[in-house]
Amino acid sequence: MATIAMDSSSSSLLYPPPEVPKKLHDENRQKLLKHLRENLDSSSRPLHGFVLLQGGEEQTRYCTDHEDLFRQESYFAYLFGVREPGFYGAIDVNTGNSILFAPRLPSEYAVWMGEIKPLSHFKEVYTVSMVHYTDEITEVLNNQYHGSGKPLLFLLHGLNTDSKNFSKPASFEGIEKFETDVKTLHPILTECRVLKSKLELSVIQYANDISSEAHIEVMRKTKPEMKEYQMESLFLHHTYYYGSCRHCSYTCICATGDNSSVLHYGHAAAPNDKTLHDGDMALLDMGAEFHFYASDITCSFPVNGKFTSNQLLIYNAVLDAHDDVISTMKPGVNWVDMHKLAEKTILESLKKGSLLVGDVDEMMVERLGSVFMPHGLGHLMGLDTHDPGGYLKGAERPKEAGLRSLRTSRDLLEGMVITVEPGCYFIDALVIPAMDSSKTSKFFNREAITKFRGFGGVRIESDLYVTSDGCVNMTKVPRKIEDIEAVMAGAPWPVKKSVFENGGS
Amino acid sequence: MATIAMDSSSSSLLYPPPEVPKKLHDENRQKLLKHLRENLDSSSRPLHGFVLLQGGEEQTRYCTDHEDLFRQESYFAYLFGVREPGFYGAIDVNTGNSILFAPRLPSEYAVWMGEIKPLSHFKEVYTVSMVHYTDEITEVLNNQYHGSGKPLLFLLHGLNTDSKNFSKPASFEGIEKFETDVKTLHPILTECRVLKSKLELSVIQYANDISSEAHIEVMRKTKPEMKEYQMESLFLHHTYYYGSCRHCSYTCICATGDNSSVLHYGHAAAPNDKTLHDGDMALLDMGAEFHFYASDITCSFPVNGKFTSNQLLIYNAVLDAHDDVISTMKPGVNWVDMHKLAEKTILESLKKGSLLVGDVDEMMVERLGSVFMPHGLGHLMGLDTHDPGGYLKGAERPKEAGLRSLRTSRDLLEGMVITVEPGCYFIDALVIPAMDSSKTSKFFNREAITKFRGFGGVRIESDLYVTSDGCVNMTKVPRKIEDIEAVMAGAPWPVKKSVFENGGS
Repeated sequence: MATIAMDSSSSSLLYPPPEVPKKLHDENRQKLLKHLRENLDSSSRPLHGFVLLQGGEEQTRYCTDHEDLFRQESYFAYLFGVREPGFYGAIDVNTGNSILFAPRLPSEYAVWMGEIKPLSHFKEVYTVSMVHYTDEITEVLNNQYHGSGKPLLFLLHGLNTDSKNFSKPASFEGIEKFETDVKTLHPILTECRVLKSKLELSVIQYANDISSEAHIEVMRKTKPEMKEYQMESLFLHHTYYYGSCRHCSYTCICATGDNSSVLHYGHAAAPNDKTLHDGDMALLDMGAEFHFYASDITCSFPVNGKFTSNQLLIYNAVLDAHDDVISTMKPGVNWVDMHKLAEKTILESLKKGSLLVGDVDEMMVERLGSVFMPHGLGHLMGLDTHDPGGYLKGAERPKEAGLRSLRTSRDLLEGMVITVEPGCYFIDALVIPAMDSSKTSKFFNREAITKFRGFGGVRIESDLYVTSDGCVNMTKVPRKIEDIEAVMAGAPWPVKKSVFENGGS
Repeated sequence: MATIAMDSSSSSLLYPPPEVPKKLHDENRQKLLKHLRENLDSSSRPLHGFVLLQGGEEQTRYCTDHEDLFRQESYFAYLFGVREPGFYGAIDVNTGNSILFAPRLPSEYAVWMGEIKPLSHFKEVYTVSMVHYTDEITEVLNNQYHGSGKPLLFLLHGLNTDSKNFSKPASFEGIEKFETDVKTLHPILTECRVLKSKLELSVIQYANDISSEAHIEVMRKTKPEMKEYQMESLFLHHTYYYGSCRHCSYTCICATGDNSSVLHYGHAAAPNDKTLHDGDMALLDMGAEFHFYASDITCSFPVNGKFTSNQLLIYNAVLDAHDDVISTMKPGVNWVDMHKLAEKTILESLKKGSLLVGDVDEMMVERLGSVFMPHGLGHLMGLDTHDPGGYLKGAERPKEAGLRSLRTSRDLLEGMVITVEPGCYFIDALVIPAMDSSKTSKFFNREAITKFRGFGGVRIESDLYVTSDGCVNMTKVPRKIEDIEAVMAGAPWPVKKSVFENGGS
């Protein structure tokens, strides 16, 4: 693909964005069917009934008619890929047929919102077996049902272990004419989402490609005296203009100087509005969403393009942790162990840099790693930035400092996509109590540590997928000090479009 | 202010954005107090009690922990200007004191979300009389109350005539210890919002300035073979990068070709994803929000930079309507009459252009204008794009085609900000029935009209404020054919920063 440079100040090797093969969601449905049928079989239940999911609805802001840009609910997106609001979707457990139910739109819709598309349009675009209107759910499902008694609906109800919220089971007029099962579907469907197909990986790869390119674009244009939000704006523009990514996976974190130790900086109460100062580090955690799938990338670099020796010390501590984890990851490896590996690498570097003194194993026992990295090492990623499935039913969250922030404690499996995002931060609220604690004060070189007050922090985050014998880093940004400095000085770092599996451009 | 050109391909005369004077919201509170006290006085009620509003809360997406970027509820923003979620605000009707109640944040907030700011910080930033925690509302209001019996709370409850939704009255633990009045506040506070102060006008003017400049930037960079969303991306980038506008007033409508006849194009089911074709018109309805206040601007132009004679005919019909209305607007003028004036101007032009034949007054009687302009001429604008107050209590919505789409039927008052947005569209769903109707078929030159099938439409939208003897156009984009063609060919059209009333840079 030729470089396109419509905007004279930047360009992209990734334009135009690829077309997503239609069979992606069909494969997702087949996978669910397979596992659901196995589950029913294993408990001698009949292979009858329907999986029924309710898609998202458009939301208005408070009491006004301001409509927020609609984004489909992720479980629904997984199975049906529908971008419009107001749909339901069903899968016949017996026949494997997939059925979409579209909202019946009033004739004024054609004037205000656009063409009222015929049902055949949705059948074609979303490659399902049939499409009906949402007011026909009861009738259609009853007609399709060939078992005895009331037809059974498998509804989605289960805990999201990150938000502690429960997914909302589908509801519709006439649901009382069905039997419902709200226990079986959620764990099976969630586990389908945990293990990505090749097509899903291709889409996540593209989200990573365009986001990597945008991070590089931001690095190149970052200068002291800019505002943090200008870095966010450059990122959003690059991923939308060249990548057609209208949504971000999450609110951009564009933290500089001391702000870079605020883990979730960038929200409305801390809105990326500081001026960049010469000598500050920047920590940019930004990822675009492409066709519902996330990317989640953090780059850390000095805003003036040249690392100081202190910045180099902390940066390389984190980079070593990042690289150590990645070179160890493979199926069977436990994620809590990876978190500890990252902690240990960072503590060793801090000791080597004379910020800490004493025995690193002892530091580990006292959980000193969590003082410098209070968040978890990484999380499953897919249709949601924090993808579900991090804790299987019955699994307990670790209780120790740092470890309790982990969004998963699982063993790695082939097909998982997980972020590796070690960080090292100087947060007064954590460092000062640890320096004062009788258990941990001995580890600190107080004089050296004091020089890092106000430093902020460094995080390096890549998206990895687990292969049969290791893992692949999907994120393509410069990581080594010399590469970052070269790119910021204008050296090329082209992100080439990955081959898109099974079709698309 | 010197031009800043950090991004080499564009620049801005408006960077850096101004600081909003702190007293804006204090003035809003004083205005409410004045009108509320007059209202109580006039019905011989005591000047006691508290206005109490609940600010917006952060929202997560479906069952996940994905947090949408928070945007304050508009009534709360009007009175307090608070950008953080989770607040309450009160105004003491007796003393005039203003009290903010901030959420009590857990200590982990400092690690994850940022510094836990002391209450004094909010007192300083939001210039209120006092700040307490939200768990102290009952205690504080009781202490502040010097009347007899239970203190009275004036809560916000009333209809939004655009959404048909009701605003949600504040609720909190302990509310049963108060008397509540949900009828008095809403109409008074809404009418305060209808009539803008000088400071509010300055903020709206800045939102217009930066959005005007961004529209011009988009015009300059638009070329055939681009995608519609690339125009959206250019607009968003310009208003955020140079104007610090993180929110848009509404989802961008970037419609080209036939899409430009879809009035609310651009939403998730019609997402600005078409390729621009040589010869197409573009209709771009985009406005940035600055410090909660909206702008709402539509530009229409040929994507190749050169109007055809057909495009010129329709464009000038709409521009004449736009200009006729603006030159007639002043206090006392009725908005329904302005809508009819716009319709009449457009019908006359279509007759002159030989698309229509017969008597224009007869066409008006048959409501032919609504076939070509099915939406209302314009709406009040402020903290919401569709600002409340369009229909006073008891006022009836017109029932005739076209007129029933009007978001207000009021007489203009000095201080109102209202959009003027006539349009002329060729919508099969409206034109074909009108050509077939026994009442209106005689007006159509079928052969000529047929040539406009697929043309789409033209809309020209500016934001006006009503002065004591006329109105001022706050929107600063090229409107005349020759100016648009010149700007698209590279001619300068600088938008200079307006003087910011009472402070700021």
